[in-house]
Amino acid sequence: MATYEYKVRPTDVDFTGAQSMLSLCDSILLSAGEDADAGGFGVRNLDEHNATWVLSRFAVERDRAPVSGEHFKITTWVQSLDRIFTTRHHMVFDARDHLMARATTLWSIIDLASRKPVPLEWLENCAVEPHDIPGMNRPLRLRPLPSYECEERRTVRYSDIDFNGHTNTVRYIGWMLDMTAPERFRSHTIKRLDANFIKESVLGQSLTLKLDRCRDTDSFIVMGATPVMLASMEWR
Amino acid sequence: MATYEYKVRPTDVDFTGAQSMLSLCDSILLSAGEDADAGGFGVRNLDEHNATWVLSRFAVERDRAPVSGEHFKITTWVQSLDRIFTTRHHMVFDARDHLMARATTLWSIIDLASRKPVPLEWLENCAVEPHDIPGMNRPLRLRPLPSYECEERRTVRYSDIDFNGHTNTVRYIGWMLDMTAPERFRSHTIKRLDANFIKESVLGQSLTLKLDRCRDTDSFIVMGATPVMLASMEWR
Repeated sequence: MATYEYKVRPTDVDFTGAQSMLSLCDSILLSAGEDADAGGFGVRNLDEHNATWVLSRFAVERDRAPVSGEHFKITTWVQSLDRIFTTRHHMVFDARDHLMARATTLWSIIDLASRKPVPLEWLENCAVEPHDIPGMNRPLRLRPLPSYECEERRTVRYSDIDFNGHTNTVRYIGWMLDMTAPERFRSHTIKRLDANFIKESVLGQSLTLKLDRCRDTDSFIVMGATPVMLASMEWR
Repeated sequence: MATYEYKVRPTDVDFTGAQSMLSLCDSILLSAGEDADAGGFGVRNLDEHNATWVLSRFAVERDRAPVSGEHFKITTWVQSLDRIFTTRHHMVFDARDHLMARATTLWSIIDLASRKPVPLEWLENCAVEPHDIPGMNRPLRLRPLPSYECEERRTVRYSDIDFNGHTNTVRYIGWMLDMTAPERFRSHTIKRLDANFIKESVLGQSLTLKLDRCRDTDSFIVMGATPVMLASMEWR
């Protein structure tokens, strides 16, 4: 278990003046990367074995969003390792050690050439701390809805992709928020976000984004020829 | 003159494996914000006077792009204050103190209600260090071209805007790079980027983006009813 410190930068807040869900997700993924690097099984270590980390699912719950300039920290640990998946937990605290958010991320390691999962053998020295986050449910397994209210097309472009040439995880969430009516950010806050990543999408690929709103939960899907990712967002 | 330290995060690099121009611009603007905060004339200080900083122009020149995990630092100082504009310089060094990039940013302060520039009276205690960056030209004053090669429409959405409800400065540069042929990032690097910010654009606003390529320099304009911003990018 280790703790990493961050600060909310001016570009991390949205028009409500508080840290956006996009920035929170970014920080959570960053804490996973920092902790994997510290353990000797980070992206650069795996790269030497022609392998890389792939995020498979995540769930984030948030009670309070910090404002610009606030310091915060993320305590993270690997909770379990099975043959294919690593489960990692994250607890986000403010400067006074009040819990602001919590998250669970599920990762696998894929071979860079075959894009297939490989057994987690590089993690044999990884410390596993089996306790869960109290009161938080695991990332949901999401399924496509029969139909969605809104739909739009999008082509993956330069600023959407990351170092491995695929659409950045957090960018998908940004697309979901872009399809949300802006007034919703003034009247509601995001309570919980779940995401499942099914298939990578690449530069130049044409995607269909679909959003559906049902009471307090929005459902989102990104489609290529087949589903690319799904998300659900619960508002309060 | 003060120096601020940063690290290239995994999300700061583009598909070439090096820090993107977007992340470099973000860091340069962040160093301006940190230094203004330290001097007591940051965004939060001005907010108490119902005023805010507005970036009017900038120029960035880059010799080398750092890779993920590299530490770097930005030394910044206010070079001049006139009635309306503050000129700030930025020098970007790697961990071995080699100069990697340099930038000049031109700022004004506007009244939050009238959106008009106000005299820079809050800066009377601001330390001005009049030396320039050796060998670097000032940000260019850019003018619209008679015509542009490519054109597309874009609506300003949630993830495009920042805390004050306007399109984020760096987002415009992202739109420019998104219109650039991806192969260009493999065969060339960006030598110099100039940008002029004419008018703010807001959530829901419909914009026209136009790009023109002429030898080694690309010209870009964002149009609402009138020009919103212009940029030019020199490749090597």
